[in-house]
Amino acid sequence: MISKKYIKLIKALQQRKFRKKYKLFLVEGSKNVLELLSTNYSIRTLIVTPVFSEAHKDALNVINDVEKIITDEKSLSSASTLKSNNAALAIVEIPAPSTYQHLPDNYILALDDIKDPGNLGTILRIADWYGISQIVCSPETTDVYNPKVISASMGSFLRVQVNYLELDTFFSENQSPVYGAYADAGTNVHTAKFSKGGVLLMGSESHGIHPNYSEYINHKINIPSYGQAESLNVSIATAIICDNIRRSSNE
Amino acid sequence: MISKKYIKLIKALQQRKFRKKYKLFLVEGSKNVLELLSTNYSIRTLIVTPVFSEAHKDALNVINDVEKIITDEKSLSSASTLKSNNAALAIVEIPAPSTYQHLPDNYILALDDIKDPGNLGTILRIADWYGISQIVCSPETTDVYNPKVISASMGSFLRVQVNYLELDTFFSENQSPVYGAYADAGTNVHTAKFSKGGVLLMGSESHGIHPNYSEYINHKINIPSYGQAESLNVSIATAIICDNIRRSSNE
Repeated sequence: MISKKYIKLIKALQQRKFRKKYKLFLVEGSKNVLELLSTNYSIRTLIVTPVFSEAHKDALNVINDVEKIITDEKSLSSASTLKSNNAALAIVEIPAPSTYQHLPDNYILALDDIKDPGNLGTILRIADWYGISQIVCSPETTDVYNPKVISASMGSFLRVQVNYLELDTFFSENQSPVYGAYADAGTNVHTAKFSKGGVLLMGSESHGIHPNYSEYINHKINIPSYGQAESLNVSIATAIICDNIRRSSNE
Repeated sequence: MISKKYIKLIKALQQRKFRKKYKLFLVEGSKNVLELLSTNYSIRTLIVTPVFSEAHKDALNVINDVEKIITDEKSLSSASTLKSNNAALAIVEIPAPSTYQHLPDNYILALDDIKDPGNLGTILRIADWYGISQIVCSPETTDVYNPKVISASMGSFLRVQVNYLELDTFFSENQSPVYGAYADAGTNVHTAKFSKGGVLLMGSESHGIHPNYSEYINHKINIPSYGQAESLNVSIATAIICDNIRRSSNE
């Protein structure tokens, strides 16, 4: 059984204002929680099904000082923000905000006003796949601790550092070449030459890159179309450009 | 106002069994409905807000024989499967099932057991972007007329033909080279040579390509990882391979 206190807290943590107030967020589902257990994140409470608890005894023993509640799948699913959750949910402390680092010979992903949590979570997973460990988000970008971002990231939120700051501030400090994704201008991503390190800026789902940032962009990049779709989803576009960056730098 | 009859019908059409029974499906949101208006699809009923109706007078005049209901945004949103819908919803006849065509020098996308409607819709949009007009789905793949597929496709369902059949049947008829996406085997997608036409097979979100189909695969394809994420979402992987196919055939 999950007490009313926890059901209320879990529900509250779906909202940014309560995550900010309590400095807590939710990690849900088997893969995300299992990956969480082997990190330094401070887990406040862990709610698991008997099956999960039995299957991952050793992993759970390591954190035996954490409050653990065992409950049935039905109660867990109904408390969880996931459609169904037959595994686990963790209430976790939000770590202190970090400062981005520009690692030499690598890329920083800059995100301008990405609103959809599914997109942000998927972008974290893509960054993690392509070995990009630093993301800088404009303050308007959706909160990385939104449960939908965490779920869609499939554990990658644990490895990719997400920093919120004004992009003007970021760009004024930045020394690396900046590549910006455009729908209707720029060099074909297939033939573009990417430097070893740099910044890739992706614009919002509906408006692309804000004109205010065009002065910072050294290279406009374009994904060629071979059909009739008007646009690509921003997470898809991010994946394609990252793939071309990695391919190009191996040539 | 939307009558109870329509509210009930719209709700029913979220379920596959009622779509099958009534031979109807839903098209929702401004972009999808506007693109629909310029096709031969048979629209049964169109529900629009006054703002949408006013803004798209000419497009709506062309279909003046279609039953049209004007309602406020609140009623439309509450009937719609979308979170919010300030534009339009159409109840549309499901066209007779088509047979796939193998166009010379082009690709067919074959999907094995894709369960998530968001993924299928995004894959339609990607296929449309990369000029692939034919998709063959295993019967277990989610229904293309699911409202979430239609929404995620952003109008591409109107241009990409989706055919459901046993993949064994499809592959036994197929003469083109088959490329299969694998997480842990095969040729690097960046260096693979793709023929001008062929079949790209993508496996399910959780299990990849079913071993039953491996006998049909001529070339296993692998997306190289540069980081620590365990996998990519199937729609992301589809986009990356399609992008490499088009790049490679232009080289």
